[in-house]
Amino acid sequence: MKLNPIVAVGCSHAAGRASPCQPQNGTIDYNAAPPNLSTLANSSLFDTWRPRAHVLPPFGQIGDPCMHYTDPETGLFHVGWLHNGAAGATTDDLVTYHDLNPNGSPFIVPGGNNDPIAVFDGSVIPSGIDGKPTLLYTSVSFLPIQWTINYTRGSETQSLAVSRDGGRNFTKLPQGPVISDPPFALNVTGFRDPYVFQNARLDSLLGSENETWYVVISGGVHGEGPSQFLYRQHDPEFQYWEYLGEWWHEPANSTWGNGDWAGRWGFNFEVANVFSLDERGYNPEGEIFTTLGAEWSLEPIVPQVSDFRDMLWASGNVTLDDDGKPQFTPNMAGRLDWGASAYAAAGKVLPSSSQASTKSRAPDRFISYLWLTGDFYGTAKDFPTAQQNWTGSLLLPRELSVGRIRNVVDNHLARETGSWRTVANASGLVELATLKQEIAREPLAALKSSSSQQNKRITEPGRTLSAPGVVAFAQSPASKFYVLEANLTFPRSARDSSGFKAGFQILASPSEHGEATTIYYQFANESVVIDRSKSSAAAKTTGGIDARSESGRLRLFDVVEEDGGEEKVETLRLTVVVDNAVVEVHANERFALSTWVRSWYADSTEIRFFLEGEGEVTFGDVQVYEELYDAWPDRR
Amino acid sequence: MKLNPIVAVGCSHAAGRASPCQPQNGTIDYNAAPPNLSTLANSSLFDTWRPRAHVLPPFGQIGDPCMHYTDPETGLFHVGWLHNGAAGATTDDLVTYHDLNPNGSPFIVPGGNNDPIAVFDGSVIPSGIDGKPTLLYTSVSFLPIQWTINYTRGSETQSLAVSRDGGRNFTKLPQGPVISDPPFALNVTGFRDPYVFQNARLDSLLGSENETWYVVISGGVHGEGPSQFLYRQHDPEFQYWEYLGEWWHEPANSTWGNGDWAGRWGFNFEVANVFSLDERGYNPEGEIFTTLGAEWSLEPIVPQVSDFRDMLWASGNVTLDDDGKPQFTPNMAGRLDWGASAYAAAGKVLPSSSQASTKSRAPDRFISYLWLTGDFYGTAKDFPTAQQNWTGSLLLPRELSVGRIRNVVDNHLARETGSWRTVANASGLVELATLKQEIAREPLAALKSSSSQQNKRITEPGRTLSAPGVVAFAQSPASKFYVLEANLTFPRSARDSSGFKAGFQILASPSEHGEATTIYYQFANESVVIDRSKSSAAAKTTGGIDARSESGRLRLFDVVEEDGGEEKVETLRLTVVVDNAVVEVHANERFALSTWVRSWYADSTEIRFFLEGEGEVTFGDVQVYEELYDAWPDRR
Repeated sequence: MKLNPIVAVGCSHAAGRASPCQPQNGTIDYNAAPPNLSTLANSSLFDTWRPRAHVLPPFGQIGDPCMHYTDPETGLFHVGWLHNGAAGATTDDLVTYHDLNPNGSPFIVPGGNNDPIAVFDGSVIPSGIDGKPTLLYTSVSFLPIQWTINYTRGSETQSLAVSRDGGRNFTKLPQGPVISDPPFALNVTGFRDPYVFQNARLDSLLGSENETWYVVISGGVHGEGPSQFLYRQHDPEFQYWEYLGEWWHEPANSTWGNGDWAGRWGFNFEVANVFSLDERGYNPEGEIFTTLGAEWSLEPIVPQVSDFRDMLWASGNVTLDDDGKPQFTPNMAGRLDWGASAYAAAGKVLPSSSQASTKSRAPDRFISYLWLTGDFYGTAKDFPTAQQNWTGSLLLPRELSVGRIRNVVDNHLARETGSWRTVANASGLVELATLKQEIAREPLAALKSSSSQQNKRITEPGRTLSAPGVVAFAQSPASKFYVLEANLTFPRSARDSSGFKAGFQILASPSEHGEATTIYYQFANESVVIDRSKSSAAAKTTGGIDARSESGRLRLFDVVEEDGGEEKVETLRLTVVVDNAVVEVHANERFALSTWVRSWYADSTEIRFFLEGEGEVTFGDVQVYEELYDAWPDRR
Repeated sequence: MKLNPIVAVGCSHAAGRASPCQPQNGTIDYNAAPPNLSTLANSSLFDTWRPRAHVLPPFGQIGDPCMHYTDPETGLFHVGWLHNGAAGATTDDLVTYHDLNPNGSPFIVPGGNNDPIAVFDGSVIPSGIDGKPTLLYTSVSFLPIQWTINYTRGSETQSLAVSRDGGRNFTKLPQGPVISDPPFALNVTGFRDPYVFQNARLDSLLGSENETWYVVISGGVHGEGPSQFLYRQHDPEFQYWEYLGEWWHEPANSTWGNGDWAGRWGFNFEVANVFSLDERGYNPEGEIFTTLGAEWSLEPIVPQVSDFRDMLWASGNVTLDDDGKPQFTPNMAGRLDWGASAYAAAGKVLPSSSQASTKSRAPDRFISYLWLTGDFYGTAKDFPTAQQNWTGSLLLPRELSVGRIRNVVDNHLARETGSWRTVANASGLVELATLKQEIAREPLAALKSSSSQQNKRITEPGRTLSAPGVVAFAQSPASKFYVLEANLTFPRSARDSSGFKAGFQILASPSEHGEATTIYYQFANESVVIDRSKSSAAAKTTGGIDARSESGRLRLFDVVEEDGGEEKVETLRLTVVVDNAVVEVHANERFALSTWVRSWYADSTEIRFFLEGEGEVTFGDVQVYEELYDAWPDRR
């Protein structure tokens, strides 16, 4: 998903000028009902909902994350994102970040021969041309581009740029694109977001030289469906990329299984990453995974409107077809995040030799950042963008690896075609594999254990609720910056209670203001829900503040704790990150649901236990880690 | 050969403004020795050397001819040429022309997404997209481009434009190129000048639908040599062109035979045309011919300098190779014009249904226009360009067909690998085939028989010369605008006289001014020579006025006039067109040598018989057709 550039109000990227982007919110009373926020002064809402521990530019709009890499010369990890071209920051710990350029200005901008209109997502070969970081990106010559309309030929080409100054600038090669056209005579729906990767399995299967680079380009074919187009490096200068075919294609708008667990494949793929994992993390010989965005709409399809964007993952087997072309066949698939605003994940290998991993003694990892669109992909046009003066954020970096769910009862719950697959089977129990995803270890540890004096850890006594109602925490956080952790255990009877919902209310106001956001699990459709209907008083006065519920599907399997033990429902292990208006709900190392919760009132900091319907839930290990770290120590 | 645009001095293409391009030569005395012409006023030399019957823009520089077509809606033939993009004119008789746009302004200009730098040669499908004239042209994104330097990838792509207003404007498709890259991973020396054609033989050989369009793109591969890249139409919208391989490739800098008759294949092909001919003219099932430019240099090769550009033709056989790819194998080859400034021929089928052919009752023909560079491909930098205010011209249109030379004695002269081949052999005589090329019938007739009152026909009595010397014509033309025709017959002993030269002097001054240009044939190296060493007094005062001799090789075979007749030397049949400074020497319907002869003095109009060395020549049928027609009745 690419957005048209929106210039931040009153701010400039011009170096050397005093930034006029200071927040101006001194006159706003967060104890009174909000006005229509669009009537406020520019930049006056800058801090109101701004997250502290997340990655986003100093001001203005953030688009897709992309172009990450570890600089082999410094060991620094570079995180990139679309922003008037693309901008980025470096990190030595995945916790704090340092803008590559003053004011977060871009390291590449559109306007060249190949990209007169825009720079779209790309990816970086860390030791590329002349051993320097080399960016392969989508250079855009024509807009609009969308799967719902005719494709303008040549609108998306793939071009190279090289950085010789530590990533502060990527200089475009003075030549045309290196992939100048989609595959011959294909009427594509999209052809963008080239993702470079190495893969020992592909090398072996295809007889490539070791450590050959591959590129997967995302898109699809009109009337046929979404595809990943695979290419192989042809020469040491990365000039030519041999087309290996649509290594993955799905029928238009088809689903994985019945669609419950992995959305729709849709009509067009975007932002595909390809990488390989084992249970520790990245392993070039591991199981092949892909993350991808899938675009689709309900009938009737409206030109230039993509109703849905599903952020998916899949793992699969790779074989050669009769023509010797590699074919990727999924063996499980799921959602990387269920949030309707969470999309465009961009990941990268983070080697154990990186500064971050050296310090944390982590093995080779695959780290992915998702985008959380701040204006629902540009459609929330009434949002007080000028007043906030920034739009969107990335989500916290996640470590991806192969997950195992052990001692699962071999019943219909385990046997469904879902975001897992059976890898072992014995004595009526199965072991399932899935994609394990957790907040990366360094930021997770830092969120929970800041060096800041202000950081407070609150242990809320556990409790069992068996009647509907809410119970306020004995001690709620004082701010809107915290991590909430808890384990929720349910009796087996909970599966049969259709109206049963259990969880928390957060960002809740104890006063008459009445703001509250309810995060709960319900067995009826096996969903984690974030009910935002009462989240924000501002939603009543101001456009573009989404009050729709978010939800995602999480199956709690029947498990036994040990051989011959009793069958029970898997514990729901929640980690909720509240970073002002950015809320990430992570569960059981395999589920994420992220969204915006734009509470207005200063007193909306209460946390409550929540139960609705008939059933029982036991909350255990309830912890609140307050304050969160500032990811941007250099700013302001 | 493409030139950087040079804006004409003091002239503008802006429509509606009075043209400031009037000649200002009233003050120049052509009876006195010339000053350094670069010191004269801008545009003061406008008329001095300007041709009258040739195709050239109203002012400014002309580049390669290209983009010709017959509009099916009007039957008018459109002649195009590079000129700040490309401009053109229409003709209903190949004699007079009408600018498509006021001031000869372009029908396409560079500056779009695909061609930010330049528009290079293209060709037109007369009934293309929506049945409209559709141009496939080389869209240029980077310069410099030359076979002597590294090729900048993407510098030349092939794009489409369509005219919906009778050819006055060709509107570029709002999309990227349709051929966006050279064949995969080829390090080309050039990749330009797409030439669209239909060919029944190729249809049959390749199993294509009838009347499929093909494209040949000219270029070559670094380290390997020149090539023609062949493509086939894939879809009715002309979006996709299937690559059929290098249907013709020659080793770098190799030659046809020993190189005497067809120059060098060089390192890079340009401006290739492909068409098929029989003895009457164009025939889609006829013998396949190509015209092409070949670029080469003497060692050591200097970057950005191509010493030579040979304007060649070849005919050949087309077969399928083991991979089912078509292969063109020459069976004879020659020079389309031997003049060092004559290059970049661009031809097109002229159907019998065209207005011109309807009037002249001509069959389907293939008509080709060559370019006569006015500043030796931009290298004559001292030429008084601003004073002349125009640069270069096209040559007169030529009809190409399969020629036959009958009753040729079957000796070593006939058997050499040359610009002919044996097609029949009996009784010690052979019949040879070659490329027949003549000035197109309508302009040739018009040149010799103008409706103008001023047109005068002078019949000069024939004579035999057997001693060295010059003999002025009894009546020379009064102007520098005429056609001279003559037949020169030689005894067989002439072949053995090493110093023997016979021909004419033209543009000769009878006064002490001493200007004269000698056109002669010499058997020593079987050459027609134009000696320009005394052609122009201005060459002594002004740079860029070339005084080098031009020469071309023409074999006069031993022939017998009838079965059992006496062996004699084939008669040299000369047609010399003197159109002010443009001189075209045509011989025996198979030879052309064209150049600039920039005589200065007003009295340099004398014609003389010429003989040098030992030998004898008989001049017969000597005719001078004076005045020539004005090809541009609308101008001024």
